[in-house]
Parts: sequence; C-alpha cells; structure tokens
Amino acid sequence: MNRAAGSDRSRLPLDRVRVVLSHTSHPGNIGAAARAMKTMGLSQLLLVNPKRFPDDEAVARSAGADDVLARARMCRTLDEALADTVFTCAVTARQRNLGPPPLPARAAATEILARAGDGEVALLFGNESAGLTNAEVQCCQRTAFIPANPDYGSLNLASAVQVLAYELRLAAFDSQPPLCSRTVAFASPPAHHQDVERFYEHLERVMVNSGFLDPQRPRRLLPKLRRLFGRAELERDEINILRGLLDAIERPKAERPADSPSG
Amino acid sequence: MNRAAGSDRSRLPLDRVRVVLSHTSHPGNIGAAARAMKTMGLSQLLLVNPKRFPDDEAVARSAGADDVLARARMCRTLDEALADTVFTCAVTARQRNLGPPPLPARAAATEILARAGDGEVALLFGNESAGLTNAEVQCCQRTAFIPANPDYGSLNLASAVQVLAYELRLAAFDSQPPLCSRTVAFASPPAHHQDVERFYEHLERVMVNSGFLDPQRPRRLLPKLRRLFGRAELERDEINILRGLLDAIERPKAERPADSPSG
Repeated sequence: MNRAAGSDRSRLPLDRVRVVLSHTSHPGNIGAAARAMKTMGLSQLLLVNPKRFPDDEAVARSAGADDVLARARMCRTLDEALADTVFTCAVTARQRNLGPPPLPARAAATEILARAGDGEVALLFGNESAGLTNAEVQCCQRTAFIPANPDYGSLNLASAVQVLAYELRLAAFDSQPPLCSRTVAFASPPAHHQDVERFYEHLERVMVNSGFLDPQRPRRLLPKLRRLFGRAELERDEINILRGLLDAIERPKAERPADSPSG
Repeated sequence: MNRAAGSDRSRLPLDRVRVVLSHTSHPGNIGAAARAMKTMGLSQLLLVNPKRFPDDEAVARSAGADDVLARARMCRTLDEALADTVFTCAVTARQRNLGPPPLPARAAATEILARAGDGEVALLFGNESAGLTNAEVQCCQRTAFIPANPDYGSLNLASAVQVLAYELRLAAFDSQPPLCSRTVAFASPPAHHQDVERFYEHLERVMVNSGFLDPQRPRRLLPKLRRLFGRAELERDEINILRGLLDAIERPKAERPADSPSG
C-alpha cells in the first residue's frame, strides 16, 4: 500500500473509503459490488482471498464499473487489506458478545466519513454464507448493521454494499446543495395572480354556458375547482393551454377546423 | 384487484406498497428484487410483461424470498398493475421535462409511506436498459431518484429496489408511524388510478372535438396537462366535477337547460 495515498489530505473523503470483501465465493457478487460502489462514487475495492477472481462473471455483473474491478487489490490477509487505515467498520447482521459497538448503517456512514478526515478508512464485508468470523470483526472499531426484517434479514452481498455506499454518499454530500432542485422540473415560470384570476373567470363562463353551473344554485363548484388548481400552483404555459382550450370550447362549431372530428 | 384490500386500514403501511417492475429483461433481477423487498418487509410484487417469468434463475437469485416470487402478480398493462392505487412514484434517474416532481429516495419514501395511509401505493421500476418510458412516468404523481455519481449513476435494478425498500423500512420504523398523513388536507379521498386515466381520456376527447387538439399535431398538450393534474393529485370529488363539466360541454346545445345563458 502506498502510504502517501493515505495521508494525502487533498483527496475527497469518499476516495479514502476502502471496501474490503473477505473470502467472497461468487465472482458475480464482486462485479455487482464494484458496480454498486461506482454508482456512489467509491473506487477502492480490496479482495481478501476471493474464491474466483479475476472472472468473466465479475466483469459481466460490474456493467460499466470494470475500472473499479481492474484496480481491485488482491490481499492474502485481512491485515494486508487494512494496512494504514485509521478506522474500520465490519458490516454484520449478527450482534457479537465481544464485538465492537454496533451502529445502524446511517450512523455508521456518518462516523466513517468523519474518520476519513484523518486518513484511510475501511468497510469490511464477509463471505456470502458464513459472514465474518469473530476474529475478523474484532479487528474493527465498529460494526454496522442494516436495519432489516427480523424474520428475513439476509441481504445479498452487493445489495449490502449498495446500501452502505449509498449512505456514505449521502453523508458526504447531504450538506451540499441538492444536485437536483425542483426548479428543473418546471417547464415555465409560475403564473401571475391576475392571469390565474382571468382563467377562473373564463372557466366559470364556460361552466355556466354549458349548463353545468347554475348561477342560481352554484353549489360549491367554483371554490372546489379553485382549491384544485390552487394546489397545483399553475404555471404560465399551463394557463395558456387551459385558456386556449376554453376558447376552443366556446367557439361555435362552424368556426372549428373543417377536419376536426365532430362531437 | 380486491378492492377491499386497498381500503383495509388494519394493514401495515409497508403491506400497502406495491413494487411494480415493468418489462424486466432478466429473471435473475426479478428474483434479486424479491429478495431485496423481503429483507425490508415488502411483499407485493407486480410484474408488467416480464421477458421471462417464472424462471429458475429468478428462484435462485431470490434466495429465501421465493414466497414473494410465488405471490407475484403478472399484469399485461401498467394500468392493471396500478389499479386501485392512490399514489404512484416512478423510480428514474433521468429528469423529464414534463415529468412529475422529482424527489430524492429518502423524501420519496417518507411521502409514499404517508400516502399508504390512504390506500394502496406503488413504486414503479423500468426495464434494465431502457428504463421507463415517458408515458409510464406520466402515469405517476412523483418521480424518485437515488442520489448517485453523476458520471456513473446506473444502479442494478435489484440494487435500486434495495435502496428504496431500505428507505421505506426506515421511514416506517425509524420514528413514529406516520401519524400525520396528508389526508387531513383533503376534503375527499384520493382518486384511484383508473378513474384518473378515464378523466384524461375524456379530456382528450373534448380537446379533439373542440378542435383544440389536432391528433396529427398533438404538440405536447396532453403530457403537459397530465403534469398539471398529476401535481394536484386529484381527489374523487374533483374527478366527478371535472367529468361532469366535460359531459356538459359535450352535450348538444339543444339538450341544455332552457334557462341557461347562451354563449
């Protein structure tokens, strides 16, 4: 391990997080874990005695994350994989009598990220069937668990990597401005009050002229429609569409485009 | 669909969450999704036109969650899968110009759980390569996205199910049960999916017959109106009012009440 990498304070916290897979049986899971890591911006994958690696199935399941696989470090021992780390956390569903303090995934992610400010950190995942040994867990300062169905808590290895990596990414970027604000979803600026009011007047006229609204017995149709459109917070474009439709409905049939289907 | 199921208030909120997988290519992903669901206590899986199902690979990847697979409902159309739902959320990484408002996974989970207080709700996932079509997204009231690496945001389907299911479980059990659902703000229960779709069909007919919508040159009027009404989350009463108005507009003038003012 390059010691300089561990002490380089310019690297992003997520770059300092190692994902250590111990004694993985299925190469497909290694590939899927690499993919899960990359989607969340993690890049350091370390493999302690995998049963089969490299392997075509790992590449296939990694989808476009073959760069993470290609850079994966093969380690003969857990000590080798954890060399130079300042904080390590074992992911395990089982509570151990003498294990380190357990944290739910979200709290663990926050702590791991905070410790990444001091140097390299590691998240340790065990074999698909047997999990981690007590000795492996006791190498770590914390355990992390994913809150799960007590009757069936068996996450797939790559799914567990995905959940932890997801929590790490949120912990790393949560305080940043959201990447995707609601504004992008809106095609048009909000309508002005007076334009909304003119739409309601127009709607009322069409309702009365169609015989749907009896001005002598208005029931509460208009307030109900105001409530509906008020909730939607109409945009300028939408007002234009709605008023265009009301115009078309008001137009005598004779003036309508000749090729339009008749009622 | 058994309507009684949707209105049975005694069921837990997580029991009312449907996971709808549309046009899934790989049966292994269906099995892995079932496993991800079960680890988080979800049980309703609906499959819209899967390429291969049932399939041995699905059973293998489901690990112990074959009960979820065995109860999976096969649907020929998305409408069938969404029948009787009161709230639907499409999981998609892509922002769509005319799509419903996007929420990050965590906020989406909170909202979905709150809406489960009113009836059946659904989370919709698309095909592994092509994702969801715009038409599928526009059937939903929200989109959910998983905050991911902007350079590589491609989660495996089952991993995406895992993250959303995890957030749903935390939302269900982390704090209190969602005591304050949005129901208090509504005067009437939310409309069912199929009634909203019938309203859109009716609106389209009136738009075409009035000459406002040219089926040869639809511009994007219908998606824009879907976006508007989707945002408003229509209630049953409102659907009745809107359809009553459309009926009145369609009626020939001669049949209208004699005393109604003319256009």
